[in-house]
Amino acid sequence: MNYHSTTVENLINELKKLPGIGRKTAQRLTFFILSIPKKEAISLARAIVDLKEKTKQCKICFNVSDKEICNICKDERRDGTVICVVENSWDVIALERSGQFKGLYHVLGGALSPINKIGPSDIRVKELLNRIKEDKIKEVIVATNPNIQGDVTALYIAKLLNPLGTKVTRIARGLPVGGDLEYADEVTLGKAIQGRTEII
Amino acid sequence: MNYHSTTVENLINELKKLPGIGRKTAQRLTFFILSIPKKEAISLARAIVDLKEKTKQCKICFNVSDKEICNICKDERRDGTVICVVENSWDVIALERSGQFKGLYHVLGGALSPINKIGPSDIRVKELLNRIKEDKIKEVIVATNPNIQGDVTALYIAKLLNPLGTKVTRIARGLPVGGDLEYADEVTLGKAIQGRTEII
Repeated sequence: MNYHSTTVENLINELKKLPGIGRKTAQRLTFFILSIPKKEAISLARAIVDLKEKTKQCKICFNVSDKEICNICKDERRDGTVICVVENSWDVIALERSGQFKGLYHVLGGALSPINKIGPSDIRVKELLNRIKEDKIKEVIVATNPNIQGDVTALYIAKLLNPLGTKVTRIARGLPVGGDLEYADEVTLGKAIQGRTEII
Repeated sequence: MNYHSTTVENLINELKKLPGIGRKTAQRLTFFILSIPKKEAISLARAIVDLKEKTKQCKICFNVSDKEICNICKDERRDGTVICVVENSWDVIALERSGQFKGLYHVLGGALSPINKIGPSDIRVKELLNRIKEDKIKEVIVATNPNIQGDVTALYIAKLLNPLGTKVTRIARGLPVGGDLEYADEVTLGKAIQGRTEII
C-alpha cells in the first residue's frame, strides 16, 4: 500500500525511467523539486516539453536543431569541404568541445550492427553519399565510436566513398591524454603503437 | 559560441541544477528524453508540474500529501498513541519501507543547528507540542538523523516533552545490517556497544 502522496510517487516513478536513475536518486530529485520555487520547477518542465516540441533534425547534417538548417551547417566560417561523420548528436557536442574541428558534420543516427539487424538502410549512409556527390567534399573523417560497430561502419563508408575519390579518414585510437600506460588495455596499447607519429 | 540547439542546451542547463547531476549526466538525460516518444516526455513534465501544483502539507503531521490530511494520519488502523518525529518527508518514506513502525509521524522540516541559525521556531516543535497536549500520545520516537544536529534536536524535544510525562525515545545507533565490524568507524562501534541488547 502506498502511504505517500500519489503525486510524489508519480514523479519518482517517472524519474526512475531515466537512464542511470534508480529509486533513491529519483526520490532525492523529487524532494529537491518539491523544495525549489514553483517557477524553477515549471521552467524545468517547460524545457522538457520544448525539447520535444521545438527541436527538429537539420536537413543537411541531421544533427538536432531548432531550425531547418542547424547553426553549424549555416556557419559560413566553417570549412564546407570536410565532413565529420558521427553516430549521434551528442558526439557533435563532444567534438565541438574539443575545438579541433572546424568542418561540417553528418549524423548517421547509429552504427552498422548485423547482430542488432541494423543495416546500411537504417542509418543515414545514403544521405551522406548524396552530400558527397552534390558538394565539393575533400575529406570525410569517420568519427564513429572506437568499437566493432563503429569500425565496421567506418570500413563500410570508406568502401562506399572510395570510387568517388573522396579521402576517407578515421580518428586516431591511442592512449587517452592523462592516462597511464600501465593501466591501458592491450588493444588500445597496440593501436597506440601502430598509430605512432614522429615527434619532430 | 553555442553551436547547438538552444532548446537542447536549455534542458541540459535546467537538469544541471538538480543535485548530483553534472554536465555529462544532464547531456545524457537530455538526449534520452529526445529519443523517447513525446507522450512519455510530456508525462514526465506533467509529473513535475503536478508535484508543485497538487501537493500540500498534511495539517496534522506536515508530511507531503495530496490532501489536507495525509493517508497515514487518516488511517485508523495505525497506532495514534505513538508519534515518530523526523526531519523531512523523505525520512517518512524510508521508515515506511522498513515496515517496522505503525504509529503516526511528525515532520519537523529540519533540525536545530545554531551554526546555520536554525532555532526551535524554525522547525515545527511548537506544532509537535500542541499535538502531544491535544492527543493521547504515549511515546514520541525521535528519528532525526544520527548526527550532531539530529542529536541536539532530539535532546531539545526530550527536555521539552519531559514535563508533560510523555515517554521520549531515540532510534538506536549501531552497526548497519550487512555491515562489517572491521570497517565500522569508532563512534558507531562505541554506540553499538553502549546500545547492546540481550540476545535471549
